Amino acid sequence: MATPTRADAAALDDRDPLAPFRDRFVIPDADLVYLDGNSLGRPSHAALTRLDEVVRRDWAEGLVRSWERWIEWPLAIGDRIGAAALGAAPGQVVVSDSTSVNLYKLASTALDLRGDRDVLVCLDDEFPTDRYVLEGLAAARRAEVRTVPADPVDGLDPSRLSESLDDRVAVVLLSLVSYRSGAYLDLAAVTEAVHAAGALVLWDLSHAVGSVPVELDAAGVDLAVGCTYKHLNGGPGSPAFLYVRRDLQETASQPIWGWWGQRDLFAMGPAYDPEPGIARFLVGTAPVPSLALVDEGVRLVAEAGIDAIRAKSRALTALLVELAEARLAPLGFELASPRDPDRRGGHVSLRHDEAWAVCRALVERAGVVPDFRSPDRIRFGPSALGNRYVEVWDAVDRLVGLMERGEHREVDTGARKVT
Amino acid sequence: MATPTRADAAALDDRDPLAPFRDRFVIPDADLVYLDGNSLGRPSHAALTRLDEVVRRDWAEGLVRSWERWIEWPLAIGDRIGAAALGAAPGQVVVSDSTSVNLYKLASTALDLRGDRDVLVCLDDEFPTDRYVLEGLAAARRAEVRTVPADPVDGLDPSRLSESLDDRVAVVLLSLVSYRSGAYLDLAAVTEAVHAAGALVLWDLSHAVGSVPVELDAAGVDLAVGCTYKHLNGGPGSPAFLYVRRDLQETASQPIWGWWGQRDLFAMGPAYDPEPGIARFLVGTAPVPSLALVDEGVRLVAEAGIDAIRAKSRALTALLVELAEARLAPLGFELASPRDPDRRGGHVSLRHDEAWAVCRALVERAGVVPDFRSPDRIRFGPSALGNRYVEVWDAVDRLVGLMERGEHREVDTGARKVT
Repeated sequence: MATPTRADAAALDDRDPLAPFRDRFVIPDADLVYLDGNSLGRPSHAALTRLDEVVRRDWAEGLVRSWERWIEWPLAIGDRIGAAALGAAPGQVVVSDSTSVNLYKLASTALDLRGDRDVLVCLDDEFPTDRYVLEGLAAARRAEVRTVPADPVDGLDPSRLSESLDDRVAVVLLSLVSYRSGAYLDLAAVTEAVHAAGALVLWDLSHAVGSVPVELDAAGVDLAVGCTYKHLNGGPGSPAFLYVRRDLQETASQPIWGWWGQRDLFAMGPAYDPEPGIARFLVGTAPVPSLALVDEGVRLVAEAGIDAIRAKSRALTALLVELAEARLAPLGFELASPRDPDRRGGHVSLRHDEAWAVCRALVERAGVVPDFRSPDRIRFGPSALGNRYVEVWDAVDRLVGLMERGEHREVDTGARKVT
Repeated sequence: MATPTRADAAALDDRDPLAPFRDRFVIPDADLVYLDGNSLGRPSHAALTRLDEVVRRDWAEGLVRSWERWIEWPLAIGDRIGAAALGAAPGQVVVSDSTSVNLYKLASTALDLRGDRDVLVCLDDEFPTDRYVLEGLAAARRAEVRTVPADPVDGLDPSRLSESLDDRVAVVLLSLVSYRSGAYLDLAAVTEAVHAAGALVLWDLSHAVGSVPVELDAAGVDLAVGCTYKHLNGGPGSPAFLYVRRDLQETASQPIWGWWGQRDLFAMGPAYDPEPGIARFLVGTAPVPSLALVDEGVRLVAEAGIDAIRAKSRALTALLVELAEARLAPLGFELASPRDPDRRGGHVSLRHDEAWAVCRALVERAGVVPDFRSPDRIRFGPSALGNRYVEVWDAVDRLVGLMERGEHREVDTGARKVT
């Protein structure tokens, strides 16, 4: 089959039902190919308008009186994320804290709920904070972390997981979409395998939410956390969410007993008496400006529909894989994501010996923004709402050009850089 | 002495060196007397301009590349709070998480540092989240919370504290300025008393920071946390700060092992290896928009100078106390804050049998915003940067008027309200 041309990509854009969504975002430089929406999504116009309302009307004019409205947001926006992107009925999701803090709260909750078990399981290449949080919790709780080997490209082989589970395992923490390879697990099947071993499952949905359909209720998932600044476009450092299945809530206790988890918050009673429902997983005062940004991000996902987003996301990454195999393989790039689109989430990683220099050159010389993941991966995360197919084509084309000109040998790779 | 007249208050404004700072804030309704800056401070014009830059330039244009700058903010802004308002040399303060989460981290740290001790001490009327966090930690760590009685108006009698300390006490958690009464402790003397018992001190500076001078380094304080949305004007739900004395940092470990505390964050190494310094107390991704707002709030405090702020704050509350005793006492109000200005922070509480109804009437009928604290207190927290003396006078005058007209008997007190 012939390698797709730019005209082929443009034809895909022409019949893309989500194409109009691009104009909903603030895109000051239309020539910049931004393929890092899985690290930090773009702001929408609606989000910035809403932020303005929140600070100029709610805060400056309403002042403390606005808390009468704001106070509902952690639960209300949680419900909206649940409905739009998690397959979760109301009353099971809150927006609160960072993903790391929520991982800590829920992994600790899981240890309490499985009080006779003392092993925490995760993959050996799980996202760092997930591994570190479990390690810290294990040290404090005299528990043990057991890591399961996962293929760095294809991710977990489900049969390896079952082999690693026994009656000491309290909880299994897994990313639905791997941060590095994009490997995409089968939520229902893995949840069932974990339950078969008598353990609880804690899903990290950071790279999945807003990109692939997630059906937490249908799969009987116990616990989940996720990030809102990637495909939900909540802005830098926006608060994370957490999910606790309804029937676990009443018996579940989380370790950080803050006033926002207290029944009748402003009664300020003498002893901690947590809310009966999901609100007991709140801790401190909610970050209002960022909550508003998250809300607008979720509304866009709801409007577009997660199935349409997934369909376009699959097609975007498929185009990228096809172009990479045809045009980048000869230049030393290897696909480091699952080739099967059913096993791949919304981003694609390529391995290259000089990945860091290539990444810098793309950003500095080619107007393409991917990101780098140590030690040798370049990660491309096109946004189904914000990116066009021609941008994927242009990114590959610009990359081919800079490699042929050797520009990656000319950039400064010394300074520590985030991307 | 004659009761101060409005002209007396206006004369104080005329010679107020901080008077020009009022124009730095966004004040859409100049007739509204806002006396709840100790719950939620106002936005400054500079803060809203900065927020606009952060979202429109840094986020929308710079996208993920802006993390190269943002990543320094939790420490850099922490240092600025330290210099402007805490008497803390650089490298000891970070902005991170909520006050509740930071209390949890540092109280846990204290228990680890005093491994042979198992008692956590706080006052019986300490702010709810402080008490609840200790209660949760005690339950998890097989420790015990010991509460020390404090006078509901005058606060802690330091001799009562020493009586309550023995060699089981690991940490004493105290608010420098009490959230309800405004009672203001002697930081150095109390710290010394706690140290004399071999315990660590953990100060909650939420109602103190930006309102009264704090000298953490000079007093040899071990640990502290505080809020940035009160006198630092960081906006609703802005992240909190924490302080760990430099010589404790290397041996201190906090319980939530997140990736932002990791040495060389983006190397994403196999095991948790925390930063050697204060950065190990970070957990997850920093909330960038709110950090920018905090930064601008701190800059205003630095520019005005904390001593000038304290001087005006004392004078504002002294005027309020004088007017309350002359004009409100006959209407059933009692002073519920220390009368001695040296023992009072930046807010004044009044007790009244119908406090809740009075509070609603002030907000709804009189254009005065104080706040209510269960069960019978009305709290007035004038801002030295944002309020004028005549506003304090007007607030009392309007309150006298509405009581005389019986308007507090006419408002709806049924609905749950935040203020």
